[in-house]
Amino acid sequence: MIGRIARIVGTPGNGVVLGIGDDAAVIDVAGPDYLLATVDMLVERVHFLADAPPRILGRRALAINVSDIAAMGGSPRVALVSLALPASTPEEWVVDLYSGIAEEAGTFGCSVAGGNLSRIDGPRCVDLTVLGGVPREELLTRSGARPGDILGVTGVLGTEAARRALTGARTDVDLPVPVPRVTAGRALAETRRVHAMMDISDGLSGDLRHLARASDVGAILYANRIPVSIAARRAGQFLGIDPLSLALGGGEDYELLIAAPEEDWEMLEASVGEKTSLYQVGTVLAAGEGIVLEQPGGTREPLDATGWSHF
Amino acid sequence: MIGRIARIVGTPGNGVVLGIGDDAAVIDVAGPDYLLATVDMLVERVHFLADAPPRILGRRALAINVSDIAAMGGSPRVALVSLALPASTPEEWVVDLYSGIAEEAGTFGCSVAGGNLSRIDGPRCVDLTVLGGVPREELLTRSGARPGDILGVTGVLGTEAARRALTGARTDVDLPVPVPRVTAGRALAETRRVHAMMDISDGLSGDLRHLARASDVGAILYANRIPVSIAARRAGQFLGIDPLSLALGGGEDYELLIAAPEEDWEMLEASVGEKTSLYQVGTVLAAGEGIVLEQPGGTREPLDATGWSHF
Repeated sequence: MIGRIARIVGTPGNGVVLGIGDDAAVIDVAGPDYLLATVDMLVERVHFLADAPPRILGRRALAINVSDIAAMGGSPRVALVSLALPASTPEEWVVDLYSGIAEEAGTFGCSVAGGNLSRIDGPRCVDLTVLGGVPREELLTRSGARPGDILGVTGVLGTEAARRALTGARTDVDLPVPVPRVTAGRALAETRRVHAMMDISDGLSGDLRHLARASDVGAILYANRIPVSIAARRAGQFLGIDPLSLALGGGEDYELLIAAPEEDWEMLEASVGEKTSLYQVGTVLAAGEGIVLEQPGGTREPLDATGWSHF
Repeated sequence: MIGRIARIVGTPGNGVVLGIGDDAAVIDVAGPDYLLATVDMLVERVHFLADAPPRILGRRALAINVSDIAAMGGSPRVALVSLALPASTPEEWVVDLYSGIAEEAGTFGCSVAGGNLSRIDGPRCVDLTVLGGVPREELLTRSGARPGDILGVTGVLGTEAARRALTGARTDVDLPVPVPRVTAGRALAETRRVHAMMDISDGLSGDLRHLARASDVGAILYANRIPVSIAARRAGQFLGIDPLSLALGGGEDYELLIAAPEEDWEMLEASVGEKTSLYQVGTVLAAGEGIVLEQPGGTREPLDATGWSHF
């Protein structure tokens, strides 16, 4: 359906540099920076429960949108809040939601610029648009990865997946507030050496497929190089499952995935600072070679989108 | 509640020139133009019926957002589409909705830059964000009207109200697609002589109150100067109601309301071109004088927000 919609919407024009298909839309507003725009709707009974704490809901909604801006190498600037709420919604709920949004936005130097409130006879809907900026020459997209590039991630993976596996926690119940990698994303973009970047929201396995498709490449991940979080290791041990499956398929990591030339790697590691690690997890292959996982012994197997089924 | 939210959101900063409270948010993106951003959600069973034709729905959703951009003196540039749809929604519905949005956007040189699709177990929600631009010096807001300014509107009023009164038509059933006054709004903004502008979506009476409050002024409308549409006159005759009440309180006009100095009026009339009329409907008063309607005999009465109850 995305393909059909993309055809209707047609060739980007009127300043639209990049439309449907990446983490955020990219718009040329004739200034030194490109405008980045991303929108995401959270819906009651799908993404959050009726009794969800509105402040946490607001923080999560803001944070996951900010991650999309970070994924393009950008900084978030302003948020627009569009709500559909039943008439029975207490004013306090709305105030607390806005408080959470504004609080989280403030940590990124992002302002809440406007809003809209509609009535609904049904579940509450919280739709956030976040606008950001990125210097034109520093824009990073999912496309641009080239065979031979190193694939890297900005942090350990599998922590949220482990928590869910261990405790039965659910994202819609717990509403984890991710820490979007805005600073690392900006630092990597400023180097102008990164070929492609995106955020890992669904899990490395699935998101790598998106990057590979957009760049028209294949990829190999090395099983013994994936930075599996301590939580995922413990959960794996305790539950008797492969910790790697939690790291590859769990989702909710909100780290950045990059593809960049090997010779620039030291410089890229330095760019993100001492407190952030840049883990080499794989290599970009030609498109025909598919997306594979190499086990320590050297055997290769196709990588499932969920990172799950082969372990 | 808007007041409480505005306090939480705090002083606009980080490039936010104007936040909650006008037709669109205004953001300084360091280019020659200010960025304008507006968002509006249409919800099934509140704003449209389950069997609404999705193409018309898309056109209407786009047009009413574009009117908010026109109200600031701006041009629409890009639209972002965020949908919450039940799993049962046919793909064709989504494709038709997007077709309507893209078709209408195209008539304003506006592109559809991105979108998001969420699941909902409930009514369909169509949330549109439209971004536009306006040269910094040409931004027009609701505030800025000064006592002595002439109040003007860009066209006749009451046509949609008459249609509803005559036929029992309902906005949520018929989904009228307004013609936002983008060209006239730009022309008026370019003169740099207009003090305040907004679009008339709820009806002249109600929207004039918003402008007066934002500008901290009062206002007088002259009953015999209001450009009552032929449809409103006929409906009034036929139904035995005052046509003026349809023109003042009906809503769905989507004309522009401006306040500008008397000495510039001829130039402003010329600016909008021969095909658009600029009707003088009243005068801006000092705040203490309230908002009143002057009848042909010279008697004045307080103007009700609905334009309705005094006739």
